[in-house]
Amino acid sequence: MKTETSIQGLSASLQTARAARKVIGFVATMGNLHEGHINLVREARRLCDVVVVSIFVNPTQFGPNEDFDNYPRTLEQDSHLLAEAECDILFAPSVEQMYGSRPRLTNIRVEKITEDLCGLQRPGHFDGVALVVTKLLNIVQPTYAFFGEKDYQQLAVIRQFVQDLSIPVDIIGVPITRAADGLALSSRNGYLSEEQRNTAPIIYQLLQQAKAKLLQGVALDVVLNDVKQGLDQAGFVVDYVEARATNLLHVETFEQDVVLFVAAKLGNTRLIDNLMVKYSKSIG
Amino acid sequence: MKTETSIQGLSASLQTARAARKVIGFVATMGNLHEGHINLVREARRLCDVVVVSIFVNPTQFGPNEDFDNYPRTLEQDSHLLAEAECDILFAPSVEQMYGSRPRLTNIRVEKITEDLCGLQRPGHFDGVALVVTKLLNIVQPTYAFFGEKDYQQLAVIRQFVQDLSIPVDIIGVPITRAADGLALSSRNGYLSEEQRNTAPIIYQLLQQAKAKLLQGVALDVVLNDVKQGLDQAGFVVDYVEARATNLLHVETFEQDVVLFVAAKLGNTRLIDNLMVKYSKSIG
Repeated sequence: MKTETSIQGLSASLQTARAARKVIGFVATMGNLHEGHINLVREARRLCDVVVVSIFVNPTQFGPNEDFDNYPRTLEQDSHLLAEAECDILFAPSVEQMYGSRPRLTNIRVEKITEDLCGLQRPGHFDGVALVVTKLLNIVQPTYAFFGEKDYQQLAVIRQFVQDLSIPVDIIGVPITRAADGLALSSRNGYLSEEQRNTAPIIYQLLQQAKAKLLQGVALDVVLNDVKQGLDQAGFVVDYVEARATNLLHVETFEQDVVLFVAAKLGNTRLIDNLMVKYSKSIG
Repeated sequence: MKTETSIQGLSASLQTARAARKVIGFVATMGNLHEGHINLVREARRLCDVVVVSIFVNPTQFGPNEDFDNYPRTLEQDSHLLAEAECDILFAPSVEQMYGSRPRLTNIRVEKITEDLCGLQRPGHFDGVALVVTKLLNIVQPTYAFFGEKDYQQLAVIRQFVQDLSIPVDIIGVPITRAADGLALSSRNGYLSEEQRNTAPIIYQLLQQAKAKLLQGVALDVVLNDVKQGLDQAGFVVDYVEARATNLLHVETFEQDVVLFVAAKLGNTRLIDNLMVKYSKSIG
């Protein structure tokens, strides 16, 4: 595995692959890698000739009160994991390399689907994501880019601006990787105390119960309320429990495929999860 | 010359050129071509292996009271001119082809340098330009893209977002093409009556006088005021007469290279022009 820290170095490394029309796969990360990221890399490895993974803790997607400075930087360990997963090129640029020294005046904004769920508590977050992902896609110019379904709203936002800006890439969503007890893998799980870590899998248990109830014909608002109560009782501070159509538009009832979303805090750690429930006309 | 009306057709036409690593040059136009556009094509022809010209009257850069519906569509004539100028591929997509049928939720906004000069009278105009140029650059993926210095603010905005979004293209500015009497060529000159057409070259004469006065040491504000008065006296309704640094930042005095900008109406026709004045320390 090669490591490149400059855009120029990366371009040079990819020149041969581009000239040979190789299929380039790309995974964008902020590092502190876990099995969820590695599964994205494996999927890229399966479908592509050349696999590029970026590690870049992007300042523009953190709010003023968020954890940019304290976000874990574990480049050496990440590098070993990526080499094991047969990543070809690790792109690990500095903030200066990505954003340069001249003032940036351009913003990308995706309307509507960024305005609720995680967007409500994190104003500007998805603008920062759209900016950095656009830049990374323009720098790497991959055939396929892989993003986890854990950040479902992020994936939907990326699909939207890639379409709206005609960016020449196929976006591939990869299912959530879970611990044996069901907890969705996340860099932020490392912040949990042992007790909190034991409590955290309740999120997924409640989502699964919600799915079962929906399929039994229980009303959507009742089901969502049950999840909320379950989280409250387990000691979470609920940010939201919501259902959306797969394109993130609002739904009132379970009459099409829906995605159930949870965001909730355990202590200072904000956890998110989601679960899709397929609709079949025979229900109810 | 090939004409392509779909993104897929264009991609197929460019596939061989891309595989052979040819240098692709791109000129984006809204059609109704004149010698100014053709000079962009000639510059592309001079520097590139493959020349692509788009003709697309982009709805998102017209304001609600602007002339989108009445903007001249002269595809057949344009097509002849482009073939004569040895354009290789004319890309002439429909609005549906460019924007699709699913709702668009993404906007690109460039701050500060879009907010005055032409941006003041045309809110949202440069957002529309940034959107369509980003889409076209992503679709054509050229090595070089050529834009006229007549739309100096547009060129500065394009350079800015291309840098900010890391779009892999070199932007080439091409000097203004003028009629023998000095009038900057523009599609909108066709709207002028014979009398107005005879008056219009005064803009350039006043800009040249302004340049001479600046080089003689006359103060910038005095010089700008003279241009404004000259336009008033000739029957123009002045929108703005301004000086800026080459990066569009404000300047109070002539102590660096400046660009003089004019926008003024003759009847219903809004004309713009600009002239750069190089600063030399020996002045004054």
